Amino acid sequence: MQISGASYIAGQWCIAEGADKFFGFSPKLNQPLTTPIFEATEQMLQQAVSAAEQAFVVYRQTSPAERATFLYAIADEIEALGEQLLEVTHQETNLPLVRLQGERGRTMNQLRAFAQSLEQCKNGLLDLDIKDQADPNRTPLAKPYTHLSYLPVGVVAVFGASNFPYAFSTLGGDTAAALAAGCPVVMKSHTAHPVTSELMTHAIDKAIAKTGMPKGVFSMIQAKGYGIAHQLVAAQPIKAVGFTGSFGVAQKLMETIATRKEAIPFYGELGSTNPQVVFAQKAAEQGKQLAQSLCQSVLMGNGQFCTSPGLWLVPSDAEELIEEAIEQLSQSKSDTLLSPNIVRSFKRSVELLKNAQGVSLLAQGVLEQTFHANAHLFCTDANTYMENKQLHEEVFGPSVMMVKYDNAQQLKQLVDSLEGQLSASIHGSNNDFVTNAQLIEALQYKVGRIIENQMPTGVEVCASMNHGGPFPSSTDVRSTSVGLNAMLRFLRPICRQRAE
Amino acid sequence: MQISGASYIAGQWCIAEGADKFFGFSPKLNQPLTTPIFEATEQMLQQAVSAAEQAFVVYRQTSPAERATFLYAIADEIEALGEQLLEVTHQETNLPLVRLQGERGRTMNQLRAFAQSLEQCKNGLLDLDIKDQADPNRTPLAKPYTHLSYLPVGVVAVFGASNFPYAFSTLGGDTAAALAAGCPVVMKSHTAHPVTSELMTHAIDKAIAKTGMPKGVFSMIQAKGYGIAHQLVAAQPIKAVGFTGSFGVAQKLMETIATRKEAIPFYGELGSTNPQVVFAQKAAEQGKQLAQSLCQSVLMGNGQFCTSPGLWLVPSDAEELIEEAIEQLSQSKSDTLLSPNIVRSFKRSVELLKNAQGVSLLAQGVLEQTFHANAHLFCTDANTYMENKQLHEEVFGPSVMMVKYDNAQQLKQLVDSLEGQLSASIHGSNNDFVTNAQLIEALQYKVGRIIENQMPTGVEVCASMNHGGPFPSSTDVRSTSVGLNAMLRFLRPICRQRAE
Repeated sequence: MQISGASYIAGQWCIAEGADKFFGFSPKLNQPLTTPIFEATEQMLQQAVSAAEQAFVVYRQTSPAERATFLYAIADEIEALGEQLLEVTHQETNLPLVRLQGERGRTMNQLRAFAQSLEQCKNGLLDLDIKDQADPNRTPLAKPYTHLSYLPVGVVAVFGASNFPYAFSTLGGDTAAALAAGCPVVMKSHTAHPVTSELMTHAIDKAIAKTGMPKGVFSMIQAKGYGIAHQLVAAQPIKAVGFTGSFGVAQKLMETIATRKEAIPFYGELGSTNPQVVFAQKAAEQGKQLAQSLCQSVLMGNGQFCTSPGLWLVPSDAEELIEEAIEQLSQSKSDTLLSPNIVRSFKRSVELLKNAQGVSLLAQGVLEQTFHANAHLFCTDANTYMENKQLHEEVFGPSVMMVKYDNAQQLKQLVDSLEGQLSASIHGSNNDFVTNAQLIEALQYKVGRIIENQMPTGVEVCASMNHGGPFPSSTDVRSTSVGLNAMLRFLRPICRQRAE
Repeated sequence: MQISGASYIAGQWCIAEGADKFFGFSPKLNQPLTTPIFEATEQMLQQAVSAAEQAFVVYRQTSPAERATFLYAIADEIEALGEQLLEVTHQETNLPLVRLQGERGRTMNQLRAFAQSLEQCKNGLLDLDIKDQADPNRTPLAKPYTHLSYLPVGVVAVFGASNFPYAFSTLGGDTAAALAAGCPVVMKSHTAHPVTSELMTHAIDKAIAKTGMPKGVFSMIQAKGYGIAHQLVAAQPIKAVGFTGSFGVAQKLMETIATRKEAIPFYGELGSTNPQVVFAQKAAEQGKQLAQSLCQSVLMGNGQFCTSPGLWLVPSDAEELIEEAIEQLSQSKSDTLLSPNIVRSFKRSVELLKNAQGVSLLAQGVLEQTFHANAHLFCTDANTYMENKQLHEEVFGPSVMMVKYDNAQQLKQLVDSLEGQLSASIHGSNNDFVTNAQLIEALQYKVGRIIENQMPTGVEVCASMNHGGPFPSSTDVRSTSVGLNAMLRFLRPICRQRAE
């Protein structure tokens, strides 16, 4: 398939006259790619938003079964993109092909899971179907018949993430959830994988044609400038925003949203250090094995998962665990990160930690190329960690902050000092869990997901998943961006009332 | 019971040294009341918030059954306040005693309904209890066991409303929902009924003692200055705000919230004109009867309900309906409004409408006292209404804007021009509903509740109610402030994961 570098506005591939160009980047070669991508204009964005608003009137009236057919078709068309998709994304991200295959499968499964859930709706969207029967004889006032169900909120803006070029990008979880709910999507493509985004857009373009959906139901905007992103979230017809990315960018977008006349929900999934709480008995009995699992999880995708276990709280005397972690991470080999920005940010962060008082660097992996990121294992004591908020910040990439605690009281203080997190794991024996019940109770209030004796990476797509957590890990603790409940972000209740 | 004029901070009645005083107001006598109320200080507010934060650690661990017992006890203690409560509130609001009796009953029922719902929880809060079973043999990755349930969000700030001194105030719907969810409440009392608020606080004080709840679970702040309100929503431990009041105040509070580091949900229920769409056949066949019902609904509480039907869309030739409305409202007698501010605002609004181009005043009720508000029936044509956004604004009090439409197309344009509303009623025959199906489909997206052939006033407290709507009628269309789902505003999901 030829790559045009165009944006996709309500069924049309568009390049503005004299548009600025930008280019993707090869992390492997550490140099820009050669396919030009054309910067979308504000006018094009407005066209996309208007088309989506018009499409909403038609799309909101489709039945759950019709939307299911649409989502199945999108999944099939992703599959039909075949090897070209994997090759292009590999070039743009340098993520291993086997990982990309897996993520592509997950992305299709996600669409199909939403489709299935829509097919199972007896009573419309997500089966919100609460009724109260009338009682015309009630005194002093007759009781009416009332029925509660859902409506889609309207046009949704979606921002792709760099670290999941399929599952959290163009046709990823946010887009799937919005389309399932009955909301058109205007998608701001991530500049780290613009060609992947174009291919994915071809897939949905075919699915729209095949299932007769209104053309404005999906648009994809290619733009490197920040202006377009802010215009998108400020546009009046936008009724919700799905975002996966950094705290800094999210904060700027929220400032723009705060200037809107109409407040809209901003669902930002921002990141997390995903504390790994290691209890005494576990460390004593299975320290070596646990260290291996933790290191494997940290190195997965070279640490570029939002659920990467970046903070370990371990007993001071957990020598076996600590030694094995040093061993594992020292032997690990460096790899690329997703973009030059992420590399710069990683190197800056580890430099800061190297120079932080009371922090020691216990191990680092082999740096095979200067533009790679290698694993870092930092270590500090509980008091130093609690006093220096800088040590709490997520380092996006393969870096671990190991905090040693001396006793249960200190561990409780550490947990109390934590910011909001997407997840935390507790590693312990049943005995550990009983002894530390109060600490675990408190830890729940810091996280969106609490995991017993498992790694946080690998977020299951299912009805009972929750991917979201207290601020600053996400901007709306009441919502999840993974799992079937992700649809709820784009639905709202309506009550229908009559006398009987 | 002696009235102290104090604020109630975590079990203590507090008056700051040298505190400023303010006074309630008698709408009936049009003069201030004589009981001094003492302005709370910022320090007192901080004490209340800190105490609530500490109480949260205990209160969140109470079982649903324990919280049910607490809510039942609050309802019982409200009942035990007896006649003094009704007399005081009548003095502060001049709402008729029979109305206040009804509202007191509703307020107790609300608490008991939440309590009942908690008792029926088999699996914890609101029965969110979604599980996915493990599949350890799945390839390439084992599937974990995951379980989704709710946690309370933390300390909730509640602002009382003037127009429902019981049901939407100190121990009203927001407080009941937050306490049911497991969240402590810091309550900013409404200055229009401070003594009512003090009595209600005595009720919850007794219930706290009786059921052994932590003292910080509820505090009540008396303050006339706006500063305290802003300090309250800015305080770090506050995790959600329940507000019922005007658009202007809500906007200011949201500006303060936008300056917080951590974004928190602001649940503002702001008001609405509650369009009454009258279809042709209904107007022709039952115009007179419908006019009577509409006028009765408008005059209820002298128009001071957020669901008061302030906008009527009627066929141009609906002569019988129009004549009857003129007749009814001309004969109606004026009454007080809740506060001098509301009177001023009402008089200013009707003056503006009297002078608005293309708007005629068809009827006004008898003005018995200059400080009263009398009914006003304004009339305009569809084009004038659509062109002048000022005519769309809610007039809080007994005022109606009747807009005449010539045909179905014009009615559709009118519906499309509407802002978000709490509710709308459609008055028609079955035939009307079939003919106007597309219009009704569109109207749904403007409202939180759509009502067939009934008045919008009288919001049923039940599981299938929705009281909330698209902006600007409320600030979070995904939530309701009436009905059992009101609890959802103060809960958030958590996933618990383990291997099996």
